[in-house]
Amino acid sequence: MAKRFIPDWTEKAPEPYSYRSIFKWGDPHTFKHPNPKLYDELKQIFNLDDSYFDKKKNEGREVVGYKKPVKLTGTQLKALAEIAGYDNISTKEYDRLKYSTGKTLEEALKLRKGVVERVSDCVIHPRSVEDIQKIVAYCNKYKIPIYVYGGGSSVNFGLRPSKGGVTLVLSTHMNKILALNETNQTVTVQAGILGPALEEALNNAKKLFGTKYNYTCGHFPQSFEYSSIGGWIVTLGSGQASSYYGDAYDLVISMKWVTPVGTFTTKDYAATATGPKVNDIMKGSEGTFGVLVEVTWKIYRYMPENRRRFGFIFKTFEDAVNASREISQGEFGMPAVFRISDEEETHIGLKLYGIDGTILDKIMQMRGYKPMQRCLFIGSAEGEKHFTRNIKKQVKKICKKYGGMYITGLPTRMWEPGRYKDPYIREDLNDYGILIDTLETSVKWDNIHNVHKAVRQFIKNRPQTVCMTHASHFYPQGTNLYFIYIMKTDDIDEYIKFQDGIIDTIAKSGGSLSHHHGVGRMIAPWLEEHIGKEQMAVLRAIKKHFDPHNIMNPGGQLALDLKDKNWRNIK
Amino acid sequence: MAKRFIPDWTEKAPEPYSYRSIFKWGDPHTFKHPNPKLYDELKQIFNLDDSYFDKKKNEGREVVGYKKPVKLTGTQLKALAEIAGYDNISTKEYDRLKYSTGKTLEEALKLRKGVVERVSDCVIHPRSVEDIQKIVAYCNKYKIPIYVYGGGSSVNFGLRPSKGGVTLVLSTHMNKILALNETNQTVTVQAGILGPALEEALNNAKKLFGTKYNYTCGHFPQSFEYSSIGGWIVTLGSGQASSYYGDAYDLVISMKWVTPVGTFTTKDYAATATGPKVNDIMKGSEGTFGVLVEVTWKIYRYMPENRRRFGFIFKTFEDAVNASREISQGEFGMPAVFRISDEEETHIGLKLYGIDGTILDKIMQMRGYKPMQRCLFIGSAEGEKHFTRNIKKQVKKICKKYGGMYITGLPTRMWEPGRYKDPYIREDLNDYGILIDTLETSVKWDNIHNVHKAVRQFIKNRPQTVCMTHASHFYPQGTNLYFIYIMKTDDIDEYIKFQDGIIDTIAKSGGSLSHHHGVGRMIAPWLEEHIGKEQMAVLRAIKKHFDPHNIMNPGGQLALDLKDKNWRNIK
Repeated sequence: MAKRFIPDWTEKAPEPYSYRSIFKWGDPHTFKHPNPKLYDELKQIFNLDDSYFDKKKNEGREVVGYKKPVKLTGTQLKALAEIAGYDNISTKEYDRLKYSTGKTLEEALKLRKGVVERVSDCVIHPRSVEDIQKIVAYCNKYKIPIYVYGGGSSVNFGLRPSKGGVTLVLSTHMNKILALNETNQTVTVQAGILGPALEEALNNAKKLFGTKYNYTCGHFPQSFEYSSIGGWIVTLGSGQASSYYGDAYDLVISMKWVTPVGTFTTKDYAATATGPKVNDIMKGSEGTFGVLVEVTWKIYRYMPENRRRFGFIFKTFEDAVNASREISQGEFGMPAVFRISDEEETHIGLKLYGIDGTILDKIMQMRGYKPMQRCLFIGSAEGEKHFTRNIKKQVKKICKKYGGMYITGLPTRMWEPGRYKDPYIREDLNDYGILIDTLETSVKWDNIHNVHKAVRQFIKNRPQTVCMTHASHFYPQGTNLYFIYIMKTDDIDEYIKFQDGIIDTIAKSGGSLSHHHGVGRMIAPWLEEHIGKEQMAVLRAIKKHFDPHNIMNPGGQLALDLKDKNWRNIK
Repeated sequence: MAKRFIPDWTEKAPEPYSYRSIFKWGDPHTFKHPNPKLYDELKQIFNLDDSYFDKKKNEGREVVGYKKPVKLTGTQLKALAEIAGYDNISTKEYDRLKYSTGKTLEEALKLRKGVVERVSDCVIHPRSVEDIQKIVAYCNKYKIPIYVYGGGSSVNFGLRPSKGGVTLVLSTHMNKILALNETNQTVTVQAGILGPALEEALNNAKKLFGTKYNYTCGHFPQSFEYSSIGGWIVTLGSGQASSYYGDAYDLVISMKWVTPVGTFTTKDYAATATGPKVNDIMKGSEGTFGVLVEVTWKIYRYMPENRRRFGFIFKTFEDAVNASREISQGEFGMPAVFRISDEEETHIGLKLYGIDGTILDKIMQMRGYKPMQRCLFIGSAEGEKHFTRNIKKQVKKICKKYGGMYITGLPTRMWEPGRYKDPYIREDLNDYGILIDTLETSVKWDNIHNVHKAVRQFIKNRPQTVCMTHASHFYPQGTNLYFIYIMKTDDIDEYIKFQDGIIDTIAKSGGSLSHHHGVGRMIAPWLEEHIGKEQMAVLRAIKKHFDPHNIMNPGGQLALDLKDKNWRNIK
């Protein structure tokens, strides 16, 4: 038997100061390669043989080099350096590009070719609220744009410095835990703290803070390791356990904001009836109203010993949706991880999780759960132990009613270790010209199939294109749909046009423009039609109040100053 | 044994067109009298004998009569009548006063003496969204103020027509159920529907709408029978089962608003990440941004068969608070009704519920639960049956840990039938010059005792004054405190000053200005200092956007146009 060919997936950290070091996901030394089953699937879909994978292209290993003059004056740079300290300001080409770049596929593809579009003029790493207050006041006076970089994981150009100016990096110094209040079950942190630092401290609260219990932050987006709490809030993120813990929106108790018209802290009551909640008005503002500097966040007891996992296979997506809806409306508490995959994602997922071809797969097939029809449901319950036991019991009962076969907690266990690793796969695929990207939407139960079918149809109308879909954030009133598409093209414009077509299809079929990725610049052209001009006018009025000179994340973000939908051309 | 004296508590419906018909709570033919135990307690506290209760005073049985000219022109009245129909507009003195009056004690006391302060110039009962759009456009053009009357239960002058103009009554015609969507578990209604009509329809959904399940609206404020869904939302109300179902804020999926700058409907997704949520910005706007005309509201399965009740007695308020906090943070789901009373409320509550003096009382005393120290906890769980069983089990376990004695579900059962009836008692007490009123606040767990003690101290510093306190809306991060005070005075100004002192004490001790009564005009003078000028400026910017001519509920509401804190003098 011939030795199996395996492509030379990159195991080499990006070169220092290279483009690749900017667009590569996550840790420079961490990789996740397509497993052999997925590799075979890709070859088949794109009609390729092993020889295609002999040679990588556009690896972006060159050192960053571009010619974009710094437009701030020496006086301005000096003034900013005096505020934040000379060690904390940079106008180096590499730094300017690094902190002007998010994690969209488009940015990665362009940087692979050395194409640099917008960069800020200087990067500042503020040390304190006072630094930020002074910087905002200074920039407001001289009308210098400000962008905020937290973890840098934006997938919609949310931090693109469309008009140049200053990028503030919050994760460098503004990443401390300020207080853990066990009585109120809250943690107060600086907005630049990333997921792991927060979660590790909370998980070890007894030791670190002398608390009675250990805690969890309850928010685990796929970007968890490389996103900040501030980013979670201003983009309205949602974690993989949101069905139980709530979305970022729900988890915020209070915040401190620095805006061009002043600094304020919202009250940290669990609930009040003192007029429209400014605390909530600020959420989702995506850098356009001001800089979020501190957050008081709900925490939950960390009780992994009570976690109960479960997995089911359904004969159809419709069955899986019906069961999910009944669970979501069942009033026995919600699962934490709660995820159903459609036919195509199940097909590939069973390969990824190593279930394809096993005895379990054979049993499923024998019992009528057929490939490209069957749908996977994985989940877990968290909370008090009798509470989680009852959730598992009720979930089982409901899934059985809809023809679901119990396949143990194994698939959830297989999924868990990779939950933050999947974004690493993009690097490998892109090395061979295969594109993978995602778009997502919020749907009402009575429209889920309509949106799912319309978007799938649009994507599948393109020959040789994978479309995997799952729903992973559940509410009694609806859920989300998360589309992952894989295509092979060297034409970035074709890819962009295709992506636009998907967004268009989501909007036209009645999905929300975003469930948890935010709007940024990428989705902005659809926003006004989606929410209506009356509501856009409200957002613009608030924007005008906070930021009369439009210095906060200007240039298309949230469509606030988007004139002709062509945000890529804004200068 | 001499026959016990019982005061001649009123059993007579108010005379037609009398002041009393306006200030009397609820149904004209329904009454709730102080029971003999409470009567005895009041005599003792105020050092009165039966003879004091021989004669009522200031009953307000006179026909309404006052001299306040209608300031709208004939042309304006004609134009408004042409819009809404001549049958739906009134400039009668009685109607103008009736729909200009809320349910504050101050209003009741003044009307008892025939003192009429602010009235609108005309009352309109719009029939449709179109009527309202035309009225708002017309009033905006001619700068005529608009106030909205739903159920009329405001306890903070929220509907006081400070500057005259038009009062729109939404509960007359705009009270229909427009759609029940069982798939999405939502109901869409006109904003003027009152609690009972909504709840009865939902409880009978199978029969009325052919649904699979019956439903509940989940929101049961004490004003339930005489408040509208629109009112619940714009004042940020909270129901007696909010710990499980959520506050009004949480229950709204989407809304339709008519404002001076246009009409819009927010999207009805369960969650989105498309920028700041205009849907949430409108909540709590208390009539100052526009008119809420339609609501899509979450509904829950109606499963009274799964309800489990429980009651406990604790040795101290501190024990009751500690147990409540542990329950709220226990992650096994929340009780629906969840209520702890402090020493003094427990003392009077046990009398009201008929437990005082019974064998149960004796057992409690024997076991060390002493009067004026012991504290009552009543509650119930709702939801799926294993879920409610587990909540009861966990609640029992935690209460036992804090020295609570289980006293069965009886006190909850005693409390339930009176839950909407207590406001009727005011009429009787006021007839004899005894005042009863309430103020409430939101507190964090780490500050509950501080606020409780400070407010109690302030109230109890006044001789012969009852102060009963309970917490009845629970969150992992805190709860509310609801103060009921009873005093005897004929001096309205003294009462107002005393009330101001309580609000002041709440604010200074760190409570929120309101947990669920809203701000209205009464609390407005404290708002700017409470939330800060930066946040007030945000609210004013939004106000200016929606209502450039300040026609929507002008004159002190939410402190938006409050200059010198003296809202009573605004004309």
